Order: sequence, then structure tokens, then C-alpha cells
Amino acid sequence: MAGNVFGTIFRLISYGESHGPAVGGVVDGCPAGLHLDLDQVQVEVDRRRPGANPLGTARTEADRIEWHSGLLDGVTLGTPIAFSVRNKDARSSDYDALKDVFRPGHADLSWEQKFGIRDHRGGGRSSARETLARVVAGGIARQFLSNAGVRVDAFVTQVGDLRLDVDWDALDTERTWVDSVRCPDPATAERMTRLIEEVRALGDTLGGTIGCRVMGIPPGCGEPVFDKLHADLAKAMMSINAAKGFQVGNGFAAAALRGSQNNDAFVGQGKGGTRTRTNRSGGVLGGISNGEAIEFETAFKPVSTVMRDREGVDRGGDAVMLKAKGRHDPCVLPRAVPIVEAMTCLVLADHLLRQRTSKA
Amino acid sequence: MAGNVFGTIFRLISYGESHGPAVGGVVDGCPAGLHLDLDQVQVEVDRRRPGANPLGTARTEADRIEWHSGLLDGVTLGTPIAFSVRNKDARSSDYDALKDVFRPGHADLSWEQKFGIRDHRGGGRSSARETLARVVAGGIARQFLSNAGVRVDAFVTQVGDLRLDVDWDALDTERTWVDSVRCPDPATAERMTRLIEEVRALGDTLGGTIGCRVMGIPPGCGEPVFDKLHADLAKAMMSINAAKGFQVGNGFAAAALRGSQNNDAFVGQGKGGTRTRTNRSGGVLGGISNGEAIEFETAFKPVSTVMRDREGVDRGGDAVMLKAKGRHDPCVLPRAVPIVEAMTCLVLADHLLRQRTSKA
Amino acid sequence: MAGNVFGTIFRLISYGESHGPAVGGVVDGCPAGLHLDLDQVQVEVDRRRPGANPLGTARTEADRIEWHSGLLDGVTLGTPIAFSVRNKDARSSDYDALKDVFRPGHADLSWEQKFGIRDHRGGGRSSARETLARVVAGGIARQFLSNAGVRVDAFVTQVGDLRLDVDWDALDTERTWVDSVRCPDPATAERMTRLIEEVRALGDTLGGTIGCRVMGIPPGCGEPVFDKLHADLAKAMMSINAAKGFQVGNGFAAAALRGSQNNDAFVGQGKGGTRTRTNRSGGVLGGISNGEAIEFETAFKPVSTVMRDREGVDRGGDAVMLKAKGRHDPCVLPRAVPIVEAMTCLVLADHLLRQRTSKA
Amino acid sequence: MAGNVFGTIFRLISYGESHGPAVGGVVDGCPAGLHLDLDQVQVEVDRRRPGANPLGTARTEADRIEWHSGLLDGVTLGTPIAFSVRNKDARSSDYDALKDVFRPGHADLSWEQKFGIRDHRGGGRSSARETLARVVAGGIARQFLSNAGVRVDAFVTQVGDLRLDVDWDALDTERTWVDSVRCPDPATAERMTRLIEEVRALGDTLGGTIGCRVMGIPPGCGEPVFDKLHADLAKAMMSINAAKGFQVGNGFAAAALRGSQNNDAFVGQGKGGTRTRTNRSGGVLGGISNGEAIEFETAFKPVSTVMRDREGVDRGGDAVMLKAKGRHDPCVLPRAVPIVEAMTCLVLADHLLRQRTSKA
Repeated sequence: MAGNVFGTIFRLISYGESHGPAVGGVVDGCPAGLHLDLDQVQVEVDRRRPGANPLGTARTEADRIEWHSGLLDGVTLGTPIAFSVRNKDARSSDYDALKDVFRPGHADLSWEQKFGIRDHRGGGRSSARETLARVVAGGIARQFLSNAGVRVDAFVTQVGDLRLDVDWDALDTERTWVDSVRCPDPATAERMTRLIEEVRALGDTLGGTIGCRVMGIPPGCGEPVFDKLHADLAKAMMSINAAKGFQVGNGFAAAALRGSQNNDAFVGQGKGGTRTRTNRSGGVLGGISNGEAIEFETAFKPVSTVMRDREGVDRGGDAVMLKAKGRHDPCVLPRAVPIVEAMTCLVLADHLLRQRTSKA
Repeated sequence: MAGNVFGTIFRLISYGESHGPAVGGVVDGCPAGLHLDLDQVQVEVDRRRPGANPLGTARTEADRIEWHSGLLDGVTLGTPIAFSVRNKDARSSDYDALKDVFRPGHADLSWEQKFGIRDHRGGGRSSARETLARVVAGGIARQFLSNAGVRVDAFVTQVGDLRLDVDWDALDTERTWVDSVRCPDPATAERMTRLIEEVRALGDTLGGTIGCRVMGIPPGCGEPVFDKLHADLAKAMMSINAAKGFQVGNGFAAAALRGSQNNDAFVGQGKGGTRTRTNRSGGVLGGISNGEAIEFETAFKPVSTVMRDREGVDRGGDAVMLKAKGRHDPCVLPRAVPIVEAMTCLVLADHLLRQRTSKA
Repeated sequence: MAGNVFGTIFRLISYGESHGPAVGGVVDGCPAGLHLDLDQVQVEVDRRRPGANPLGTARTEADRIEWHSGLLDGVTLGTPIAFSVRNKDARSSDYDALKDVFRPGHADLSWEQKFGIRDHRGGGRSSARETLARVVAGGIARQFLSNAGVRVDAFVTQVGDLRLDVDWDALDTERTWVDSVRCPDPATAERMTRLIEEVRALGDTLGGTIGCRVMGIPPGCGEPVFDKLHADLAKAMMSINAAKGFQVGNGFAAAALRGSQNNDAFVGQGKGGTRTRTNRSGGVLGGISNGEAIEFETAFKPVSTVMRDREGVDRGGDAVMLKAKGRHDPCVLPRAVPIVEAMTCLVLADHLLRQRTSKA
Repeated sequence: MAGNVFGTIFRLISYGESHGPAVGGVVDGCPAGLHLDLDQVQVEVDRRRPGANPLGTARTEADRIEWHSGLLDGVTLGTPIAFSVRNKDARSSDYDALKDVFRPGHADLSWEQKFGIRDHRGGGRSSARETLARVVAGGIARQFLSNAGVRVDAFVTQVGDLRLDVDWDALDTERTWVDSVRCPDPATAERMTRLIEEVRALGDTLGGTIGCRVMGIPPGCGEPVFDKLHADLAKAMMSINAAKGFQVGNGFAAAALRGSQNNDAFVGQGKGGTRTRTNRSGGVLGGISNGEAIEFETAFKPVSTVMRDREGVDRGGDAVMLKAKGRHDPCVLPRAVPIVEAMTCLVLADHLLRQRTSKA
């Protein structure tokens, strides 16, 4: 069980090493008859593309999606949708020095301990380049969700210790894609951008958090017990490179509240349905959507590769000095926003389909 | 895909409603030839048993495990290990008033929206009573892990805004089971106990956090990409009732650090292997264990059922006043500690077995 | 992956050894809101019950189903439906002599080679008693199918070299349950019964074949490529004890035909749909139902335990003489008919649910 | 659950339409550190290649495998191995007439009933071209098996009513690839070849059977209950296009035998292990390998597309005359031999890995 398949009914299998011939994936279980806007999927890929973001790595990839199967004139056939993206600007020689050396904060050593072998070039499959497949598949899932009236918006809520201090309801998420830093509040975005540039100049890196809000998900979506909607979202988020924490609704803050403070009171609306006055639950109760916005946040550690000399270790267990090399993001947060959205879309598309089988 | 199966190779299927005939489960994939101490599994069940904990609900259940299959003279046969526990002290009539009414903060409404039907008695399957099956299965998994030198310890790290302020390395986790509050630091435990009693007297409830530390897991355990070790742990934790957040290693705090601060420096030990000086990663790098202690924390919201009258809503969407009834915990944290351990054991046993298939 | 779970959306997990405390199972994924006639499920169990059939083993079990979960007043909740049946008339001492000895034609040796341990009493989990769980689960699946207008009928088509020589369309399958031998044609049934009694008197055993016909399955059911409807049926049938062969439609006979002879010509019916004049395909084309009756046949070997002394082998690899002991069927075919139906129902219920997710 | 994933630990996901951009697949779960001879995989693909076999279709495809991931200098990394093959000689216009018409004996109508849409060009994904992915993946699995001492040989045992009448033990399976017809007995091969040419001249087609023998599989491989080794093989075989029947060991013939005739007597060999004198069981007892050769046979119907005018049906349900067009095999048996081997290798590699998790 090698763990490269995500989802149950709507499934993605992802493949590819950072400096191998290609990265790509296969979506199995996308329903037939869906009109896909392939250009829109490309737009989403471009948003995470290295080189597209002035705040990101200098590596430049065209990242053009090649579509292999599952479509007839842009309509899904119900068969697997395979796609790939060639790796072109792979300067593998940058990594020669790392062949027998393990970097701190990276998966170099743990992967080799697992497999007895690793592709040391560009981090191999532990590179964030793998997430490209997620963004393509998520882009497909999003179009399925859109038809069902579901909208998914992620945005940066914290960079370093700089936190977005605006109520989510007051945000215009259309603005997320305007600023390279992917924060929809212009004033915060500007300060975050400045911070990233300062820290980059120091050869250092930053972490942060990304928030995500889902509107329009019908109530009753999610599964009881193990596959709770927020449990699957947690797994999805924590499977993204550098993720360290996840919370839904008021999350860790709920731990300090009393029950009398924490419950979301109902607003009965007669036949019009039932809503809640507040949304501390984050749109999920007992693992099942209640019709409110699904809201959660994911924490990311700072990029491990700092542009400074660091101490690594070699195969014999001896310390070695590592020169700063390669091209890296000073802060993954902006480029992780499309990935958070993509993984969210995959989870929701899967659960929407699962929900079709819940009633006799 | 109804989501009552957990794990891939070492799997648990859980079943049962709070006030139905029984709760139980089946463990499929436990290797053959394991000598099980069934009394020890009963001990673990007793730790989460209602009535066993003076800080918990007044509901009293004997919770004796009946073993149905998979064992010969206490040795696993490699076949499914089925077990059940009868529900005895189910005062279902307490819940008659809830048949057509939905409580705030509970899964009543979302479950009915999903299934079109629900067992309103005691929360049905959304009751924490379901976790009994997890504790039994986790108890089996733990004995498999023990043979491999793995030890799993969970403990309460926060109740309300009262936080355990002791370094985890300084804790004597044997003490966890001494105090009902399940915090191994005696001074903190005493203050937590007092807080719970105070809040219970007010008819209110408390949330908190539970920490978990795994010692002895070999490096190389976990899967790349989607089934990262900490992603599977996140899902496992978030699938526990009332869980709101999860973090591994320094978690959300990592978001505010710089890369130069966050990496764990190696301590090369020559042939003796490689360790790290600090453990901000929480024992997992790139989704794979690195041989350090695996450390994570889970946040729980306060119990939704407060012993005060609350406003619910009925089928027509109209407000109804709910009288405080039933028997509930003022704080689930103490009873959730064995559940956190159990889910951790399930994840680790599964990944230990998966690791057997990683190399040619 | 221990292989005790069957199905993808509508799933059965089966457990239990022949002489352990109980056999049983859990159905996960049965849709909510299904009114179950539990007495009817018991009827199906009674049809395979040892002792119920004069042509079968002398072992007598009451085989009363205990229902543990998933139901409220006989209506499915969408949660796991767990059930068990106690083993009562287990004369385990009959098997003491087999502890260190392996019987020919049985799974004794191969199971021990796999697991390094086995429950030698009554064949342990390799006993046909395991199929009880399948019949219960199949009985639930059948009621789901009935609501969709699907009917499943199996019957004995061959005992030894005695073959049912009647066109299936001419059979009155209501008669299947009249004769103990489970062949709906009275004349053939009588001859089969006589043959079984003759062979039983000789202390020998018989094999045979079972046919199965499914009426009312909608066209478009099944999955392309690996999970073809008849591929899943083949696996289901071959997973039944003693099964040796499977064929769909004209099966092996198709191998000898020319293409010009084998195709089923269409009968266009305008808006009324399209049928075929013949049904050599057995109701499945390209793995997907075409609306015709699904027809297939399964071959079973004769029972391995003959009532004669046989040569076995012991742990050291030396020959040992085995006295005929235990209580066994001279011919499993009659008791296998409900099992064939049950497995068919499980496959079809699963695919009906899967089909709900095929279109956007 | 769209059914394009095969296997549990060693898994193939297959994709591609006959006239789409490419066919291909991803192997997930192949252990790390396996030295792959990629040229040998290409040899296996060439054996099923259209145009390579004088007895097959006139369609000519180079069928060069492109490798996308999972390999470093020909050694497996433990990550997904993705591959694709471009479709080049696709004369899609041949199929224009079939856009709104359904052919008898084909999956045209049933696929459209399932998905509401189909790729009519060359059969879309119901084309045997899909099996190319299986042959590539099977070629990888075979090299894993070879390292474990396992050898898999398939060969044609029947074409039309012409049956290979030679004991399998007397066959030199190296000869299988010498004759285009893929029968290792020269005399039979010659007669089969003549028959195929005769029938092709008549514009008609032939079915037949393929036998498969596995040597060197260790005893104890396979899973009890649902995932019996021969049940998984049955599913694998029945998932191949045009398959109609499956039997293991003496198969359907066992139905007519007595128990006293059918058991395979042991040949105890002391510490040297235990074998059986005969092998009617086909190497599997109770779903688990017993160390003897695994032997089974699969029946295939004649190719549905005969080179004669046939009556089809249109969307309105009205009859239409279909002109014989396209390029088709008069007999799929020769080209199906590598597919049978490939699917067998996939099943066995999966079960060898599963077996690693059976014991504590």
C-alpha cells in the first residue's frame, strides 16, 4: 500500500519525481458527461507554477498539461483521465553533491531509510513538484463541484508572525489571485510581501498558515465515524508538503471554551431550513456538513532549505557542511494556496459522490 | 463507502449504536501467531468505561468484551478477530423527547440530513460509545507494537485554559493512569481536577487538548505523498468525537518560525545511526518516521450537552426549549486519552505492516 | 490485506471459525431507510443450515441470527449492520486426531504453511460454516435488490455426471426449495437425490454445478476494465468453498463457436428499448449488463472428506492413516445454492450502488 | 468506484482509449530496489502488438513504452512507475459510421447505457488496446516474481474445436513464442494456424482457450475466504476482453468425479516437504498455494466483429445494416497469451507481498 492513491470513488493516483521525465496523474471515478474547461485547469496549474510567482523559486517550468485519455471533445467519458507534465528545467547537477549526504529538515534520510534508495535530484518525489498532479486533479474536481453549486476559496492567513486580522466574511476572495502573496486583504498582503522579501534577502525562509472556506456544500455530506468530512480534510491537508497542523472551525481555540460558549445556536427558518447563528463548528457536525460554510486552517513550517551553509550528515553518520545551492521558495505559502484548494476539491467531490449511495 | 473501516492492512471495522443491542468490531489483518493478553485489552477498555472515572458520566456499563473469533488459546490465527460489548445500562426513555428535535452542537440534524433517518437514543452511532471498538482494536494493535519495541503514551495537556507546562521528556507517563484526569504531572492534574469539578457544578463543560508520544518506532515507517504518517495520524485523531485540531511536532508554532530556527540539526553517530538534537519535526520528515519520538497533539471542543436548558429546533424548523437530561461527561478529555492511544496504535500497526512491503 | 472484506460500497466483512464461539459478519454500506424483513433473512439462513437438509451433514445447528446494530425498528440506519450466530453443536473432540496431521484435498497444510498456525477443529475458518455470514449479508442485499426489481435464482444443474437437461426459461424456480436437492425440475431432482443417496451409502462424495439467473437488472450496470460485472461474479463464485470453475452465458462452449454463430442479434424495439434474440452473452457485454438475464454457472468439486480411511501426512512429512470421522455432506451442491445466490446478491447490490456515481 | 485499479498492494491503474492520445498506466506498490530490464518489458509488449503477429489485425503500432517515473538508472524507487504508449495508427474515420449505431456482440450499447456517452472510435476504452497497460505492468511484476523463483507460462490450448491434446508436463513452453499461434506443441500449432487462416478467408472468427501454468510459487501464498488465490485469478482472467469461462486444476471435470477419485494423495518427503502425487487441485487448496504448479484455463469467445455485413441497431432502436470495416483479429487467442501471463503476474506479485504481512 504505497499511498499514491487519494480518494475512494473520485480518486487521484499521482506519480513523478522532481527531476524525472515527467510528473502527472490519473483521475479515476470522475463521472461521465462533465464538460471540462481544460484551459481553466491550466490556469490553476499556472498559479502554482514555479517562476510564475515573483515571491517563489527561480526555477521556470512551462508546465503545460498533456491530456492522455478520458475525454471526448472536452467531455468526460467516465473513464480514467490521465495527464502529464514534462520536467524541463531540471538542473539535476545542482544536486550531485547531495547524493551521499542528507540535509537537515528534509526527507532525504527518512526516505532512504524506508526504501533503501532515493532519487536525490531535487528531492525526487518528496519535492513539492509532486503537488502539480494534485492541482490538475483538483481542477477537474472543482468543475464537478461548481456544477453542484460548491465554491472553494483558500488564502494565506499568516506569514511568519504576521497574521491576517480580518473577519473571513469581510474578505473579497476574488482578490486572492491579484497579489502574489495570495492574501485577499490588500493591506495585509502588502505587509506579507514586504516580510517575505526581507527574509529572502537574509537567505532565510518563512512559514505560515492558509485558510480555506467552502460555500454551498449541501448538508448531509460526509461520513460517520472514521471518514468524517473534517477527518478526510485533515488528512488531505497534512499530506501537503511542510504541513504541521490543521484545525476546523474555531479549532484549538475551542479547547479553552466552555460548552455554554461554544455551541452554535440554531436559527430555525421553518420550511426554509435550519441555519446556525455562529459557525464555530466550521460547517461540520459529527463529521457531516450542516450547510454552513466549511472553514479550516492549515499550518506550514518554514522551507527547510535556507540559503546559508548548514550542517548535514553523510552515509557514515559524519557531519558534512552543505553549501546553499538549488532554487527554492523563501516561503511556500503563496504557492501552497492552489494546492490547499485542490486537495479540498478532491475531498469534497469524493464525498458528494459517496453521498449518492447513502439512502435506499 | 460508508466509512466504518479504518486502516489498510491492519484494519478495524467498527459497529454499533449507543442504545442498540451491542457495540463491537472486527480486526482484519492482525498477523498470525501473536500471543494476546486479553485481560490487558480489558484493562484498556476499563480506562474509557463510563462510570469508571469519577470525573465522567454517571452511566455505568460493565463493558465486558466478548471474543467471537480469530483466537486459539489466546494466539491470533491470522483470521478476523471479532468482539462485542453489550449495551446494558441504556436508559433510552431519557431520549424520547429528542425524537423529533435537534440539539445544538450535536450531530442530530446533520446525520438526519445525510441518512433521512437517525437513532435518536443516546446519539445513536454518533455517541462516543462507538469508540469502545477502537479501544479494543487499539489494544490488540498495541500488543503487536510492543513486540516491535514501540510504546505509545497519551495524556491530557490542557483542560479549558489550564495547560500542562512541563517538558514532555520530564513526564513520568506511568502516572497518567493514577489520576482520573489522566495528566501525569501531579500538580497540574490536581488543578485540572478542581477545574472540572467547578465547571461541572455550574452545569457547564470543558474542552482541552491531549498529547501523544510514540517511542521506539523504527525509522523508515510511513508512506510518501498521500498516506504520510502524520497525515494518517491526523485523520485518526480528527475522527474522534469532538476533535477540532491536530498538530505534529511544534505544529502551529512552526508557522511563526524562520527556516534557520526550525530545522532539527543532526547528531551524527557514525555507524550508530543518526539522530537529531531537537525534535521540532515531531519524529516525522516527509511523512516518514526518522527514528525520533513521534509527538503530536489533538484539540477537543467542550462537550456540547450542558446541563442547562438550551434552545433546539424541531423538524419544522421551529425553536424548542430542551431540558437538560441524560448522563454526560463534563469534560471528555480524561476518557479520550485511551481513544487517542488506540487510534495511534491502529495507525502505527498498519504502517509497520505496510513497511514490510517496501523493499524488493 | 487479509481478504475478509468483500465489496466496495456495499461491503461484507465476515468472521468466525467453525468451532470457535461464533461466526458472523458486518455489512457496511447498506443504504439507510431500507425496511428489512429479518424473518426472511432467517429463512435464507435456514436453507443452508446443517441438519435442515436430509441430504446433508448430521451436524445440527439452530443458527439463529443475533442482530447487533444498524437497525431501528427493522429499518436500516445507514450504519454497519452487525450480526452473529453462535456455534453450539461443535464436537471439537472429533478433530483431536487431526491436530498434527494434514488431510488430502483439504486446506489443512496450505493454511498452516501460510499462517504457521491453524485451528484444526472442524477445519477452522476454512470450513463452509464461514459462508453463513455470506448468506445473512446476501439476504440483506437481496431485499435491496428486490426493491429495484431484481430477482436472483440459483439451482443445481449437475450432480456427478447427472445433468439438468431443461432449458432455463422453462424452469419454475419456485420449485427449487421444494426438493432437498435444490433442482427445480422434479424429474431431474428425483434422479439427483437417488444418486446422492447411493454415493453416500458407498461412503463417497459427489461434485456438480450450480446455475444462477438474474432477472430485472437494469442495463448499464457493471464497470469497465477490471471490475467487469462477470469478473466480479467470477471472483465471488470462486471464493466459495470447493468451487473449481465459472462460466458466463455459453461460457466454455463459446470457445468452439465461430463469430458468425456466437453474436446475439438485436431486436430493436424503437423507443421501447433494444433486446437481443438470443442470450449467449449471459446478459453482460464488455463487463456491463445489457438488460438481458444474467446467467452463469459454477462448478464444485466433490467433498474431500470421504467416509473411508485415507492416507494423510504428519508434520514430519510421514504418511499416516486417517480414520473417517466427523459429520460431512456427501454432496455440497444443495447447501451451496443459497451461498451462490448470496454472493450474487452482494455483487449486484454493490454494482447498483456504484452505478449511482457514473454520471455527472 | 470506476474499476480501473487492479490489485491491493502491488497495484495497476490503467487508462486510455483506443483512438485517444495514448494508453498507459501507473504501477503503485512495486517494491524499491528492483533492477528492471526495461527492454524485456518491451519484448512482452511486442508480443501482443498489433501488426507483429501475421495471424492478427493489420493495424500497425510501434508501441514504444515511454517511462515517466519511479526509476533511477533502471532501479525501482518504490514510487509509482508511470508509463504510456502513444496511439499513432488510429484510423478513426473508419468508425464514423458507428457513432450512432450499436454493433451486436460489442459493448457499444451497454457502455452508452452506463455512461450516457461513449467514444465510438475503435471501441474506445472497451478495445483490447487497453490491455497494453496490463502487459507493461505484468512485465514489471514478472521480474519481481522471477527474483523469487516464480515462472509463469501461458499458451493456447484450444482454437475453435481444435484442442491441444498433450500433457502440460510434456510441453516445452520455450516454444510458445516460436509459432505465431502461441501453442508450444508444433503439430498442434500448425493445425491451429491452418484453421485460423481458413476461417479468416471466410470472413469469420474463432474463439478458444488459453492455459497457464505457474511454477515455483511458494506454499502458503493466497488469502482465505474472499481473496482466495484462484478467486483473484478468476477475476483477473474474466476481466480480459472476450473471456467467458475460467477453471482451475481439473475445473469443470471435477464436478463429475467422486471424492475418492478427486483428492490428490500426498507424497510425504520427510523434512524435504510434502508434495502431492497428482495435481487435480491446480496448486491451490482452500485458496492458498500448496507448492504444486498452479494450473488454470480461460475460455474466450470468438471475435465479435466478423468481416461480413451484420445487423446493428441505432439510437431509435431501429435495425441498421453494418458494413464490415475496421481491422480486426480473426482470433484473439494468440495475442491474448501475453495478457493472460500479465494478469497472472499481477495477481501473484500482489499475493507474494500480501503474504509478507501474514505472520507476527
